[in-house]
Amino acid sequence: MKEESIYYQPEIETIERGELEKLQLARLKETIRIASNAPFYAKLFSDNKITHESVGCIDDLKKLPFTTKSDLRDNYPFGLIATDMKNVVRLHSSSGTTGNPTVICHSQHDLDQWSNRLARCMYMVGLRNTDVFQNTSGYGMFTGGLGIQYAAERLGALTVPAAAGNSLRQIKFITDFGTTAVHAIPSYATRLAEVMQEVGIDPYKDTQLHTLIIGAEPHTEEQRKKIEKLLGVKAYNCFGMSEMSGPGVAFECTYQNGLHLWEDCFIMEIIDPETLQPVPEGEIGELVLTTLDRDAMPLIRYRTRDLTRIIPGKCPCGRTHRRIDRIKGRSDDMFIVKGVNIFPMQIEKILMQFSELGTNYLITIDTVGNNDEMMVEVELGELFTDDYSKLQQLTREITRRLKDEILLTPKVTLVDKGSLPQSDGKAIRVKDLRKK
Amino acid sequence: MKEESIYYQPEIETIERGELEKLQLARLKETIRIASNAPFYAKLFSDNKITHESVGCIDDLKKLPFTTKSDLRDNYPFGLIATDMKNVVRLHSSSGTTGNPTVICHSQHDLDQWSNRLARCMYMVGLRNTDVFQNTSGYGMFTGGLGIQYAAERLGALTVPAAAGNSLRQIKFITDFGTTAVHAIPSYATRLAEVMQEVGIDPYKDTQLHTLIIGAEPHTEEQRKKIEKLLGVKAYNCFGMSEMSGPGVAFECTYQNGLHLWEDCFIMEIIDPETLQPVPEGEIGELVLTTLDRDAMPLIRYRTRDLTRIIPGKCPCGRTHRRIDRIKGRSDDMFIVKGVNIFPMQIEKILMQFSELGTNYLITIDTVGNNDEMMVEVELGELFTDDYSKLQQLTREITRRLKDEILLTPKVTLVDKGSLPQSDGKAIRVKDLRKK
Repeated sequence: MKEESIYYQPEIETIERGELEKLQLARLKETIRIASNAPFYAKLFSDNKITHESVGCIDDLKKLPFTTKSDLRDNYPFGLIATDMKNVVRLHSSSGTTGNPTVICHSQHDLDQWSNRLARCMYMVGLRNTDVFQNTSGYGMFTGGLGIQYAAERLGALTVPAAAGNSLRQIKFITDFGTTAVHAIPSYATRLAEVMQEVGIDPYKDTQLHTLIIGAEPHTEEQRKKIEKLLGVKAYNCFGMSEMSGPGVAFECTYQNGLHLWEDCFIMEIIDPETLQPVPEGEIGELVLTTLDRDAMPLIRYRTRDLTRIIPGKCPCGRTHRRIDRIKGRSDDMFIVKGVNIFPMQIEKILMQFSELGTNYLITIDTVGNNDEMMVEVELGELFTDDYSKLQQLTREITRRLKDEILLTPKVTLVDKGSLPQSDGKAIRVKDLRKK
Repeated sequence: MKEESIYYQPEIETIERGELEKLQLARLKETIRIASNAPFYAKLFSDNKITHESVGCIDDLKKLPFTTKSDLRDNYPFGLIATDMKNVVRLHSSSGTTGNPTVICHSQHDLDQWSNRLARCMYMVGLRNTDVFQNTSGYGMFTGGLGIQYAAERLGALTVPAAAGNSLRQIKFITDFGTTAVHAIPSYATRLAEVMQEVGIDPYKDTQLHTLIIGAEPHTEEQRKKIEKLLGVKAYNCFGMSEMSGPGVAFECTYQNGLHLWEDCFIMEIIDPETLQPVPEGEIGELVLTTLDRDAMPLIRYRTRDLTRIIPGKCPCGRTHRRIDRIKGRSDDMFIVKGVNIFPMQIEKILMQFSELGTNYLITIDTVGNNDEMMVEVELGELFTDDYSKLQQLTREITRRLKDEILLTPKVTLVDKGSLPQSDGKAIRVKDLRKK
């Protein structure tokens, strides 16, 4: 039997910042040494006159340009591999709906590091070998499947690899196997709660659920609270992406006040996606990550496209790894109105606070005269009044709260439930009609 | 890096039979000791006055009744667990289309044993850490996903967890990643070859494929040969089932003359599914297996429902573990005509030898007067003649060959392509219209 407590490592998780930076520097030098075996990085290091010996401090990293998703595609499939192919034991690939997919390769060492890091995350929120852990991710190429599976097994939990879909079967597993913890994307967690209600299962009385791991889909604090209440669980936010191996890059502790990004395994930067300069600490920008524990395919200054900020201050849990805020959206989704960077998630966050509103909304930006105008249409909830004065009052209140958040006054329009376009896949939230 | 050669173990694979039986007995006693922790087996052993100490030879096993799928269902989900639940790290469940699914639980030890045994199988047919191994199984609950994944990683192959479906994407992976080996069910291997042809990929010139692992679906030697030719590979037959952990119970060596059943991990019996008595060596019957290396959920004398026979004689490869023949179907599919046990696969095997025929056929059994009559309708292939005398001659030849195989003379009818009922899922091959 596994000695599970190896997944709490105070000497790493509460390491003094100065020591952490020393560890990062040593690992960065090793990463640069390894990466120079890959044709792509060999050229990049040589062009920028960098060697693992010349790197003297973490800031030296900034002498290197960013690595982007396009670099992965242009060097598809194996141009960034820094090891002999016979050391590679796993490949994960994006769906590649347009052009070549992005491919990430792993050595056994990489899989071990990833599994251990993710086991650390799960141990942090209280999961133990007595838990029954059901994973509703797709398996195969999607890293939320095998990634979570391996980590939960390391922890010694009873893993139920249910995979995606079939809600009735998921619920049968949850009740029959005494599932205590579930991994799901937020929208699927909500769906499971709905189906439970339809079939008369009370998650509080009829299940032993206590923990949910949610990730892979941006969501607001309000959505988390709703899911927690619906299922009677604590829901912990998990951040990751296949380019950074998969889930487990950053993870909430039991204080639920931001996600500890594991700085023994990654160097993080937050940049302005327009200027590419670092943003002041605490401000929102694009997360850029350098891997520190991969040997098959290290990535250096990788632009994740995910928007977040570093939460200032110390976490009461004692962990010294800095926390990032929940993902605010994708840098590709950012739009600029009157010189202000705006992310759809900022709008959504405010709208979700009104119980009178539904969940569907649409932001339209257009040129009116010489000015940019921003309009927010949002559907009303099922049961709201048609009392005109109440609707007017609600509109005013929403407008005021949006202005507080984005520093602009949008035109807010309340519409009937079902009147905005529905989407089967990823909802379209922004229509930019301005002449470029 | 893994020392891959640990997956050839001559001391086990070519063990002298006497030594193998000693090993089996020791492991059987240990299995009985462990199994007695499960309520189901505790009662069964007590009812039959068996303890691990009382077992003196392998034949003592026959003092115990068979374990069946119904026993698994009646004790759903955890009545056969022989260990503390906190030692269980994985659960696999059947789809359970009718009634409760069957559930198999694994400890870390069980997963290690299973992975190592399957890595042994794959090493046996020449797979190494230089191979690129693509798994087209469904993942999640289906054991062909995680089972094969873990084993291929142990071997150090570059695994591509493509999962099921999306043939165009599978083929893109095969060409782009230089896939050398694929795991697929036989019908899907054929489908991949068809789609390759449609999109102008020549498996001989445009891919590096050399090995295919096929299983989970009964198929004939003729189908194997066809698949090998279509894809330019050697195709090795793999046998397993979730109740016996999954794939890797028996596997062909490079001689392709039957599947070595790993007798260090299983005790096998072949019984008549009607009388439940052992059949003479070499005759077809139902395979019954006892696990020898599981500790979370050992199964004793489990009726697999799979029909096969032990192939007499020694294999030129030197392995001493006895070989079973390819699966002949399910004992549930067996039908009896005029006192003769007949399996649909026997019919299929003969029909597949005629290049003039398509792949769809239907066996109908009916009472005519006081006699059972058997009729075989089979579709012609695309391009066959409508010359009456040629059709008559073909019918006679098919009838003669069927009679040689099943010792009865069926009425054979050739029909046009597409005129028999099509099936989306499992084809219905037998219609029994007799009054019971």
